[in-house]
Amino acid sequence: MKISGSQPIGIFDSGLGGLTVVKEIIKVLPNEDIVYLGDTARVPYGTRSKKIIQKFSQEDANFLLKNKVKCIVIACNTSSALAGGFLKKKLKIPVFDVINPALEKANKLTINGKIGVIGTRGTIASGAYNVKYSQTCPLFVPFIEEGELKSSALQLVAHKYLSKFKGKIDTMILGCTHYPIIQKLIQEEVGKRVKLINPGKCISFEVKKYLEENKLLNGQKKKGKIKYFVTDLTDRFKNVAKMFLGKKIDNYLKEVNLLK
Amino acid sequence: MKISGSQPIGIFDSGLGGLTVVKEIIKVLPNEDIVYLGDTARVPYGTRSKKIIQKFSQEDANFLLKNKVKCIVIACNTSSALAGGFLKKKLKIPVFDVINPALEKANKLTINGKIGVIGTRGTIASGAYNVKYSQTCPLFVPFIEEGELKSSALQLVAHKYLSKFKGKIDTMILGCTHYPIIQKLIQEEVGKRVKLINPGKCISFEVKKYLEENKLLNGQKKKGKIKYFVTDLTDRFKNVAKMFLGKKIDNYLKEVNLLK
Repeated sequence: MKISGSQPIGIFDSGLGGLTVVKEIIKVLPNEDIVYLGDTARVPYGTRSKKIIQKFSQEDANFLLKNKVKCIVIACNTSSALAGGFLKKKLKIPVFDVINPALEKANKLTINGKIGVIGTRGTIASGAYNVKYSQTCPLFVPFIEEGELKSSALQLVAHKYLSKFKGKIDTMILGCTHYPIIQKLIQEEVGKRVKLINPGKCISFEVKKYLEENKLLNGQKKKGKIKYFVTDLTDRFKNVAKMFLGKKIDNYLKEVNLLK
Repeated sequence: MKISGSQPIGIFDSGLGGLTVVKEIIKVLPNEDIVYLGDTARVPYGTRSKKIIQKFSQEDANFLLKNKVKCIVIACNTSSALAGGFLKKKLKIPVFDVINPALEKANKLTINGKIGVIGTRGTIASGAYNVKYSQTCPLFVPFIEEGELKSSALQLVAHKYLSKFKGKIDTMILGCTHYPIIQKLIQEEVGKRVKLINPGKCISFEVKKYLEENKLLNGQKKKGKIKYFVTDLTDRFKNVAKMFLGKKIDNYLKEVNLLK
């Protein structure tokens, strides 16, 4: 099967957090067509077992393959950590996880060699981000999904999770697609001098480099088309999606059943 | 198909919260065998669409039917609210939802007629608890599942959700299986005089009454056997389960795939 540059980039995520990755990819690769799948019927992945995350991720990838994508970006950190290697072995097209580019960037930026990472229980427990300082932040995702971005309760939670990093690290990876939304709050808690890394940004440059080197860029001059698919379309979808994507979804949007 | 008293009672829930209902049923019906299914691979249901909740609930019920239960208790409030009527129509054995018995109890207890209910977004939006005062409390479940029962952040969240009830209602339904775990905190916020209703207690008496009236009680003298099934068995399972059930699960426990 020959891959062509005119095929879309496939991106999947456990839900809508992956739209922060889409946002970065659009900036760097504006002419690419994209097929996005958010598994909103089964979100979140962050607390589930490795076995289930591999199963769900395989089903997500199968859907993208059916949509004839030229490569697959795993936007979800938990899925990257627990199913990334598994999918890379199984699939015949290139698969990108968000972890490796973020780790490379962190290793470039750090001066004292002390890198921290925050993420879901699954991501941190996997050890995929092989750095010295780590912390699970399981309450960040629910607060962010509720749009409670400035509440005092979230500040207390952030202080509890993050104060231990202060004065220790000089670089921190935001190891969950949701965290860039509260980047300011995180910066305050870990200290102004700590460099924060958004893996969505790192992976967009990695994908661009790969497509360039392999002559797989989409040659079209116009803006790329984006198709959004979710496994459960709720009334709240558009508001939550807007927070992550930074703009309204006015493109193609459809609900799908992965198991059919 | 004739139903016999020696068959087990089937109970399903979106996850582990339904164990607070199992705890109440064991108290009232100690000689009954029970088959419990927690859909931990797809928890939570509270933020999903009606269509998806009906689909998942049907799959949950199908699993219990295969296990030859004599009746089905929907422990999950969201599933009761959005799929209760649907399952009652579809299934040929008795189906109990947690909502009606709680509403009856509330109407008996109230003096001023002002009843409140708190629950997930799905439960509250459904209008199934047809009372005047209602509030969604979406952050309670994540805090409880994290075991963060006494944090200052949870107190702030509780105050935000519940202070509006103070001085207004005299009875409140805890419309989510998780909430009895933080009953004390809720009581402080709504005022000491407000009567709190745990739907798990109400449904256990309703099931007992039904089984008595229809001569479907299990006649055995020994304690009933309980089989626990979950769709995803994680390392954290036993600790979280203990919080809801009030004791360790040392019985039969198995992971199942509902779609096989």
